[in-house]
Amino acid sequence: MAFLKVVPLEKAREVIASFPLKPEIEVVPLSEALGRVLAEDVTSPIDVPPFDRAKVDGYAVRAEDTFMASESEPVRLRVVGEINAGDIPSLELKPGECVYISTGAPLPEGADAVIQFEDVEREGDEIIIYKPAYPTLGVMKAGADIPKGKTILKRGTRLTFKDTALLSAVGTAEVPVFRRPKVAVISTGNEVVLPGEVLRPGKIYDINGRAITDAIRELGGEAVFLGIAGDNRESLRGLIEKGIECCDIVLLSGGASGGIRDLTTSIIDELGEVKVHGIAIQPGKPTVIGVINGKPIFGLPGYPTSCLTNFTLLVAPLLRRLLGRESEVRKVRKRLAHKVFSVKGRRQFLPVRIEGEKAVPILKGSGAVTSFVDADGFIEVPENVEILEADEEVEVTFFG
Amino acid sequence: MAFLKVVPLEKAREVIASFPLKPEIEVVPLSEALGRVLAEDVTSPIDVPPFDRAKVDGYAVRAEDTFMASESEPVRLRVVGEINAGDIPSLELKPGECVYISTGAPLPEGADAVIQFEDVEREGDEIIIYKPAYPTLGVMKAGADIPKGKTILKRGTRLTFKDTALLSAVGTAEVPVFRRPKVAVISTGNEVVLPGEVLRPGKIYDINGRAITDAIRELGGEAVFLGIAGDNRESLRGLIEKGIECCDIVLLSGGASGGIRDLTTSIIDELGEVKVHGIAIQPGKPTVIGVINGKPIFGLPGYPTSCLTNFTLLVAPLLRRLLGRESEVRKVRKRLAHKVFSVKGRRQFLPVRIEGEKAVPILKGSGAVTSFVDADGFIEVPENVEILEADEEVEVTFFG
Repeated sequence: MAFLKVVPLEKAREVIASFPLKPEIEVVPLSEALGRVLAEDVTSPIDVPPFDRAKVDGYAVRAEDTFMASESEPVRLRVVGEINAGDIPSLELKPGECVYISTGAPLPEGADAVIQFEDVEREGDEIIIYKPAYPTLGVMKAGADIPKGKTILKRGTRLTFKDTALLSAVGTAEVPVFRRPKVAVISTGNEVVLPGEVLRPGKIYDINGRAITDAIRELGGEAVFLGIAGDNRESLRGLIEKGIECCDIVLLSGGASGGIRDLTTSIIDELGEVKVHGIAIQPGKPTVIGVINGKPIFGLPGYPTSCLTNFTLLVAPLLRRLLGRESEVRKVRKRLAHKVFSVKGRRQFLPVRIEGEKAVPILKGSGAVTSFVDADGFIEVPENVEILEADEEVEVTFFG
Repeated sequence: MAFLKVVPLEKAREVIASFPLKPEIEVVPLSEALGRVLAEDVTSPIDVPPFDRAKVDGYAVRAEDTFMASESEPVRLRVVGEINAGDIPSLELKPGECVYISTGAPLPEGADAVIQFEDVEREGDEIIIYKPAYPTLGVMKAGADIPKGKTILKRGTRLTFKDTALLSAVGTAEVPVFRRPKVAVISTGNEVVLPGEVLRPGKIYDINGRAITDAIRELGGEAVFLGIAGDNRESLRGLIEKGIECCDIVLLSGGASGGIRDLTTSIIDELGEVKVHGIAIQPGKPTVIGVINGKPIFGLPGYPTSCLTNFTLLVAPLLRRLLGRESEVRKVRKRLAHKVFSVKGRRQFLPVRIEGEKAVPILKGSGAVTSFVDADGFIEVPENVEILEADEEVEVTFFG
């Protein structure tokens, strides 16, 4: 084990890209598809509407029967039946005949137009027509809305209510979506207790466990919070083993510097392999990446802003890849609200808040909860840069 | 019963506002609070951090002991103990003493500064200090991050992962949120079948059931899809009674014109009271609003775009009120991409798609599924307007 042999961020990303995890497809009922990401293109297996359909309430006619109709010489057609929406059309229209039809009902054989009630007069079992109807008048042709075979939704679409409605329209009851990766989240540190517990002297409430768990859920992944491991080998090893067993990925947060960091590294080394001992970025130097039984395990820094920054840089892209959401833009260009100083030779990520077209640096330090709560994301200050001037254009990466 | 006595939209909204439904508060565990809307302001019950805390790994000192330190005349302090994060600080620092302390650990009594390792020399059980430390150096004071009693989140906040993390930081285990209104969704029409079923001649797949159900879920409500009622009284009455029993609100969609509309009106009249028989807008004329056992029931038009437009105009605002999300902006100002014609004397809502700064009218007709799928929302054309010119400013209301 080479402790604290830090690698560049790119190297850490290569390691993550090499993990044997691939997007997987599962089929869910349409009723559970909302918000999921489509794993395949969907084409319509049917014409919508599936048949020539009345667009209005009225009379279905053979248009040619009406071509000679005029105010002075109206045409009379005999009403031979009635078709309502949902009826199976059995009758065939012969010359001189028409049928009472309701909106949405299928046109009978022979008919090619629907004249609305308002435009005819009824007299006994006849209607009187004063002007010609053209073929397709009052009709929605089969497939006019969606033709059979048309691609209606693309792989990678995050399904909204409009998309699920569209799938319903073409009769799709089962939807291929990307399986949600399952992520175990473990908090560490003797000082950390869970909300609701009594806060004894020297203790603080856990922040990262909740932040990471819910950030994963917002991303569309499944998160399982396993609780807090104290600074002892058995407790931490037990939770890591549990995480590896139940989940696809394990995330540890907090205490990644100092004692717990060494402990984590040593346990990963024992159960699997440590791939990255630290990353040459700030914050993130103490980030550990390993693999156990082919499953990635990340030890993220303890300070909330540092933890979230490294989650955003390393873990979120992996989750997005598994969820088929790689192409989503999570960056925006803004102008720096004021000058910031950095340390030469350090690749730094600074939390910023977005205000209109400005990115406002947050300088409370990564130890403050409020600095991560106030921040929308972060900007990168490269190694060779010491000063970013006010109004300089910067790229803001959103947290999560 | 006065059939087809249409009322203005404002009157329909007054009727809805008068329904005896109020936002209700429920308490959920923090682990289930993500995405919910906060029903009360939250103030911090504790100082964060709860104690003066070391920001770095180093030595806790009494700053005044170091005031005389210089390169030429360094100060020596005796290391009398070690405090790690999570330790309960029992010891009190006396003049001339210091304590080995790790990041996040509570300062011992008497200490008011932490000098990091890099800035001192260790010699046996002593450290050598070459420059003065000032009080608060290397220390985060109790409450510096979040003072006790501070309002940290406002009523009406839709909780993101940053908010739940903040709640965790102050130890809140139970969160007061607005109860999700439960809405029963019923599709109607003899022509309608569910996705996955065989499509027999004359039938089409249900669209509105899915669209409404998932639109409610996206809004944050709970939707229960009860299935399809055919055009017969028993089936429809049975589902309406079921909806009134299990839910806060009942929505019927489809078939609201013609036969089913009359049937719906007559069943509401039998079980409760019809409040609105139609609204003087297009689409929406056949919309029915009633109340059964104090619970609102809506009969929405059958065409998908008409159904969604009326859902957006009438039902979504009610749901948002119950969910504490009334203040959310769902409108945007754009310029019309091309001229559109309307009918004088008709208050019309036209579906539009947003493209950059343009609102592009969708003119496929409300019978097409694709017209509602392609649209982002709608614009209103008042009664006295016949033509909206290209480039005119319009207000687009988003669907949902």
